[in-house]
Amino acid sequence: MMAAPIEFFFDFASPYGYVASHLIEAVGGRHGRAVIWKPYMMGAVFKIAGTGPLMDYPLKGAYAACDMARTCRLHGLPLTFADGFPHSTLAPARAFYWLADRDEGLAKRFALAAYDAYFGAGHNTGDPAVTGEIAAGLGLDAGEVLAAIQDPAIKVRLKAETDSAIERGIFGSPFFIVDGEPFWGADRLDQLERWLASGGW
Amino acid sequence: MMAAPIEFFFDFASPYGYVASHLIEAVGGRHGRAVIWKPYMMGAVFKIAGTGPLMDYPLKGAYAACDMARTCRLHGLPLTFADGFPHSTLAPARAFYWLADRDEGLAKRFALAAYDAYFGAGHNTGDPAVTGEIAAGLGLDAGEVLAAIQDPAIKVRLKAETDSAIERGIFGSPFFIVDGEPFWGADRLDQLERWLASGGW
Repeated sequence: MMAAPIEFFFDFASPYGYVASHLIEAVGGRHGRAVIWKPYMMGAVFKIAGTGPLMDYPLKGAYAACDMARTCRLHGLPLTFADGFPHSTLAPARAFYWLADRDEGLAKRFALAAYDAYFGAGHNTGDPAVTGEIAAGLGLDAGEVLAAIQDPAIKVRLKAETDSAIERGIFGSPFFIVDGEPFWGADRLDQLERWLASGGW
Repeated sequence: MMAAPIEFFFDFASPYGYVASHLIEAVGGRHGRAVIWKPYMMGAVFKIAGTGPLMDYPLKGAYAACDMARTCRLHGLPLTFADGFPHSTLAPARAFYWLADRDEGLAKRFALAAYDAYFGAGHNTGDPAVTGEIAAGLGLDAGEVLAAIQDPAIKVRLKAETDSAIERGIFGSPFFIVDGEPFWGADRLDQLERWLASGGW
């Protein structure tokens, strides 16, 4: 029997999700676990969880800016924010699921390229044209992707994925579940990996 | 010239502060850094920071309960919450500063014993009698300590320490500053230690 996969929940406007996107496949690979990528709309959880965008908090927001930059430097990742960050992440999240239904590996490459565009190059998550350019960079037809993300079915799909994530208690990004155990934050990848290596404690 | 110390800010009602209290002196010791312990009243920061007690948040609170227990098990620390947790931490925080002005090492031993009483044995931070028992366990005169924490001067002292922490941007527990660099959370001790080992990045 195959070992259960790692579920990787994230929002495309999450800098720590960006960090995790560059680390999680290697963690899975070292322990024989597939990784299922699951973007969701973290904005939908803020009201339920009584939280808000991290950077908006006094004190905590200033620290987070320092910590995100330091964490990215530690992992050799550039970090640039789009003007007016954060913006909507509907376009890349819908494009992801449309791609995932056709080719899961391609969808993951899209997600990584999207994160690099948003936080490496400082592009705007909310601009569908950027989603089209990311798709084109992977050899896809940008027009087809942009049409697909306007399809009511894909809108319903993303909403269902988001509702499902919230029902399962997910409130942040990145968030991982494996073997029923939840891990929140790029800084829980060490515990997640120990868990996989040891079978838990 | 002595290397600058690590400042360790914490609240006695913080489970992650309890974890850090058992780890931070070894981190400092490995890198020739003294550690200055600085309890403060995290409740005073909630309004300013727009935050609240971690366990009170929907979704996040449930995860935190799981994560705190898992993190304590990882470090071999028991974890028990007092009924009605969290309670006021005025008594141990005031006792700490009263002791620190007399013997910093004794004050640290008091803080460790207090954390073990609160999270190891599930005693109530808000009950001054518990503070007296912890002090007595260290060979101190419980009555003298209980009288000391009612001294207006020590009340002013704790308020000043708390105001100073907030002015310096501190909003959580544990929170560390070393060489001007801030680190929030027991889960940032790995970055803090890398920082000390490498001189930063």
